[in-house]
Amino acid sequence: MITAPLRRDTARTRDRLLDAAGELLADRGTAFSLPDLARASGVATATVYRHFASVHDVHREFHTRLIGELVAELNDVSDRHHGLDRLRLIGERWVRLAVQWGRASTRIRRPEGFLERVAAGDPPTSALHAGLAPVVRELVDAGTIPAQDLDYAILLWITVFDERVIADLTAGPGWTPERIATTLTASLLGAWQNAG
Amino acid sequence: MITAPLRRDTARTRDRLLDAAGELLADRGTAFSLPDLARASGVATATVYRHFASVHDVHREFHTRLIGELVAELNDVSDRHHGLDRLRLIGERWVRLAVQWGRASTRIRRPEGFLERVAAGDPPTSALHAGLAPVVRELVDAGTIPAQDLDYAILLWITVFDERVIADLTAGPGWTPERIATTLTASLLGAWQNAG
Repeated sequence: MITAPLRRDTARTRDRLLDAAGELLADRGTAFSLPDLARASGVATATVYRHFASVHDVHREFHTRLIGELVAELNDVSDRHHGLDRLRLIGERWVRLAVQWGRASTRIRRPEGFLERVAAGDPPTSALHAGLAPVVRELVDAGTIPAQDLDYAILLWITVFDERVIADLTAGPGWTPERIATTLTASLLGAWQNAG
Repeated sequence: MITAPLRRDTARTRDRLLDAAGELLADRGTAFSLPDLARASGVATATVYRHFASVHDVHREFHTRLIGELVAELNDVSDRHHGLDRLRLIGERWVRLAVQWGRASTRIRRPEGFLERVAAGDPPTSALHAGLAPVVRELVDAGTIPAQDLDYAILLWITVFDERVIADLTAGPGWTPERIATTLTASLLGAWQNAG
């Protein structure tokens, strides 16, 4: 995890390495080495080793960055929108990110569940939970959906918007991101409405 | 894949090996060897090598058996029940199986999506799709849920009943299998009802 601000060029190199890691993950899965990452990114091997201790470290940082981007999108939408509008816009941003990185992300999916990771205090998972919770609470308070178990409602959300589902609907039936976002949002809303 | 019926004792040994593989997967993940499997199951190493060419082969056969059991449960329920009863009973059987083997199964989750595997003709995935499709079709024909994209409806089903969701609700908030089955079925039904 980055604990102090990185110098701008260092941050740019790190982003370039994580972009390349995303492409390697999508194309070949987890079977690549730090020298492979150096070759794919055009960054010197010694520099790659300064950024990452291991390939496992690369996977974790890739995942952390992806969740960070999703949380940033969530917060951006939440600053300016409410209720169903907010829900719909978050769905659109989420699908757009997943279309870009979802295939890579399915390769490093962790076996532990979402609630288990929240309970363990895993930082990216906790940040995502914290970003989604007020959206659900607002819909309950407005009477759009019935009162329900908040953790379960959030688990349903991340399950329906699973990166593998989005990659599958993109690759197989060839749905557009717009159709995926609209359809998943409607399904989620129906699931929430039938709770309690 | 088993193409000819196995002799009874051979089949029993295979089941014992796959049971032990399930426990190894749940406890340690995929990091075990065929000799480890021999030790854990109490079966001679030479016998293990007669059954499986590689650990990858063990993972695949474990997954195939699990889906085979789920499809057998589906078909058993479908022989005697209809409509919402059928949906509810399938949910109960599914959760019961997932509580038993779900943790192991999350370790060997494949990055390819469900529809992608159906399109590729993957036998266990196709069998599961074929077992679920008539249940959805019957609910549509009865007017319980609106007409909708059948593949998407089935994708939602296997997504909501994802083994990781079931393992998460069991381990974290400690839900009983009955509560998980009832809640997931209600969510799925709400999602289907809000389609189209």
